[in-house]
Amino acid sequence: MGFHTKIHTTIRRSFDVCSNLIVHDVLEDGKKEENKVIKFQYPKDLKKQLDLEIQDKSSTVDELMELCKSTIDNSVRTTHPFFNNQLWQGVDAVGLAGLYLAHALKTSVYTYEMAPVFLLVENAILQKIRDLCGFSEGDGIFCPGGSMGNMYAINLARYQINPEVKTKGVRGYQQSIIFTSDVSHYSITKGASFMGIGSDNIQIVKSDDAGRMLPDELEKAIVSTKEKGDTPMIVVATSGTTVQGAYDPLDKLADVCEKHGVWLHVDGAWGGSVLLSRQHKYKMKGVHRADSFSWCLHKMMGVPIQCSVLVLNKKGDLLKRCHGVSASYLFQSDKFYGAGYDTGDKSLQCSRLADAFKAWFMWKAKGDLLLEREIDHKFDLAKVDIGNIYLYGM
Amino acid sequence: MGFHTKIHTTIRRSFDVCSNLIVHDVLEDGKKEENKVIKFQYPKDLKKQLDLEIQDKSSTVDELMELCKSTIDNSVRTTHPFFNNQLWQGVDAVGLAGLYLAHALKTSVYTYEMAPVFLLVENAILQKIRDLCGFSEGDGIFCPGGSMGNMYAINLARYQINPEVKTKGVRGYQQSIIFTSDVSHYSITKGASFMGIGSDNIQIVKSDDAGRMLPDELEKAIVSTKEKGDTPMIVVATSGTTVQGAYDPLDKLADVCEKHGVWLHVDGAWGGSVLLSRQHKYKMKGVHRADSFSWCLHKMMGVPIQCSVLVLNKKGDLLKRCHGVSASYLFQSDKFYGAGYDTGDKSLQCSRLADAFKAWFMWKAKGDLLLEREIDHKFDLAKVDIGNIYLYGM
Repeated sequence: MGFHTKIHTTIRRSFDVCSNLIVHDVLEDGKKEENKVIKFQYPKDLKKQLDLEIQDKSSTVDELMELCKSTIDNSVRTTHPFFNNQLWQGVDAVGLAGLYLAHALKTSVYTYEMAPVFLLVENAILQKIRDLCGFSEGDGIFCPGGSMGNMYAINLARYQINPEVKTKGVRGYQQSIIFTSDVSHYSITKGASFMGIGSDNIQIVKSDDAGRMLPDELEKAIVSTKEKGDTPMIVVATSGTTVQGAYDPLDKLADVCEKHGVWLHVDGAWGGSVLLSRQHKYKMKGVHRADSFSWCLHKMMGVPIQCSVLVLNKKGDLLKRCHGVSASYLFQSDKFYGAGYDTGDKSLQCSRLADAFKAWFMWKAKGDLLLEREIDHKFDLAKVDIGNIYLYGM
Repeated sequence: MGFHTKIHTTIRRSFDVCSNLIVHDVLEDGKKEENKVIKFQYPKDLKKQLDLEIQDKSSTVDELMELCKSTIDNSVRTTHPFFNNQLWQGVDAVGLAGLYLAHALKTSVYTYEMAPVFLLVENAILQKIRDLCGFSEGDGIFCPGGSMGNMYAINLARYQINPEVKTKGVRGYQQSIIFTSDVSHYSITKGASFMGIGSDNIQIVKSDDAGRMLPDELEKAIVSTKEKGDTPMIVVATSGTTVQGAYDPLDKLADVCEKHGVWLHVDGAWGGSVLLSRQHKYKMKGVHRADSFSWCLHKMMGVPIQCSVLVLNKKGDLLKRCHGVSASYLFQSDKFYGAGYDTGDKSLQCSRLADAFKAWFMWKAKGDLLLEREIDHKFDLAKVDIGNIYLYGM
């Protein structure tokens, strides 16, 4: 009994110590201009200073505090006013609080009875996002990153053309082609390789000088694919490219996709947040005509990493049919309240984090209007950045 | 200025309120026997009680506190002494503290300069895990769940047989076959579908009554696959099946795999934690002969969800060659300290959480010996459970 009480006390003390350090050293000190963004050390030097090795014996609370301090001291202060990454800035404290709560409850969101609140929250936020897109109905799922969101979309498009691929594989079927611009995200390439399609079967479409996919070039590529006897499978458009922040002309791309019956996916990993801004949402005009949309709420919107979503503009159970394997020991269908809330089989993952909760909590806290102001402010800052780049020739 | 100060104060207050609730209502009250594990409510009733809708305006701190309280009140108390899931129990407070720190620093672990401490920690823990497996050298990566770990292994095995598949896809090549037991995890099926292999190209191998794959049956299946002109690609063995907790006989499976030159992957998602126990590690005898091993540290070991790893028993840059696309704007190779620490291109993901840190922090805190005691204790409890099942006929 004494042994367990002692462990419990150590655990609680180390938890308290770490929580205090986070509030003071990360969230408060991390924001002070006079501190450095990063105290760079070479790997060989840093290794000598960190006590990396795991021992047989337990650490004391003081040793743990030292580990926390070294970690904070030698990490990048992403909340520092001089830190600027093209994809995100430091953590939002309300989002972080939501994340803490979800993780403290240690739940995996596969069934309603395991995660009642988290699944209702996920449903509510998926509906909110579909409303922002102008999708009149549909489905969706949170997934581990924007790359996976794009891959899910490719898999759904492939399955819709030929459901047999799920059991028979892609051998023996027509070659299926992915269309995307020459400045789109590299996850399309990673996905094509991973999914057995092969990166050679991505048809790269030219973009203009500002990085926007050229609709005429897309149409030419689709026609030429058909002439070769291959199947145009999906067009992956980008709303916010990584380097230039370009938005593909969705309305014109949707015209081409509709004409040729090709799935239109919008990769809004970074740029999708403009849907919250009355001033900037014109950049995604036509998104309501897309078949799917992926968005990382941990990027421009500021939710803690990771928080990525894929939403579908179509009623029905495509996600479940495409990804599901109906593992009977996990997903019983004879529930007295219905199995409609269970999401486990819509996902490629088994254990799945309640990522939706931190986004919902932060969004509830700020409301649409405050988030809109924050997003508009980021675009204003970008103008200043661009001005400085021209001015100082960086 | 007044506007921003007000936001800042609200944010800090809501963060503090939520942190206090976590400590008292989740970590302390959640453990009390007299409280319920779950206060079940039908979805339609719960929806009425939760204020799910996101509004234009910001919420007050009191409203946020109500949201937190409703969430805790209506969620499953996984830390409750009567809660028992086959895969995990409630969160470990030290692991949670490590997770909080990593998330507060909001970092993605793609390059050394972005995440110096987290990458060194990931390297240290990968080395520790390879040592536990008896892998003399090798590589590894943390990935979003055990399902993805298994899929990574399949992709690596496929790439090793024929690197061209990465660019050309699987069409036009020999049919490649996955071997796994009839009680293995459903992620093999999900992966085969997602990766364009097709679930029909999994060769199911019979297991004995205790759920252990039969090595003779495996050999027969491999021989018959070769006779058909297909390529045996990978054997996915399980260390700890989901329902029975069975461990496949790795040494005998390794004999078969060596004889036929087939990649041996060990799915230790749940059961891999026995490697920490001198009493139970015999269950995985022969693991040092596997090509790869995947393990969820968030299951039996108790790290907060998610924390999954894949380690390889082979020197070289297979992970990077198989998954990498060398996006030059992210992964510069002309670094003055070398690019050897950069992991971004080893992963299928782009943004990637510092999952290794929470595991390392908890492991440092407890040390090998205390973790061993905890794992041994779980096996002792399982004996009690089984006794009760027989006794009460459940």
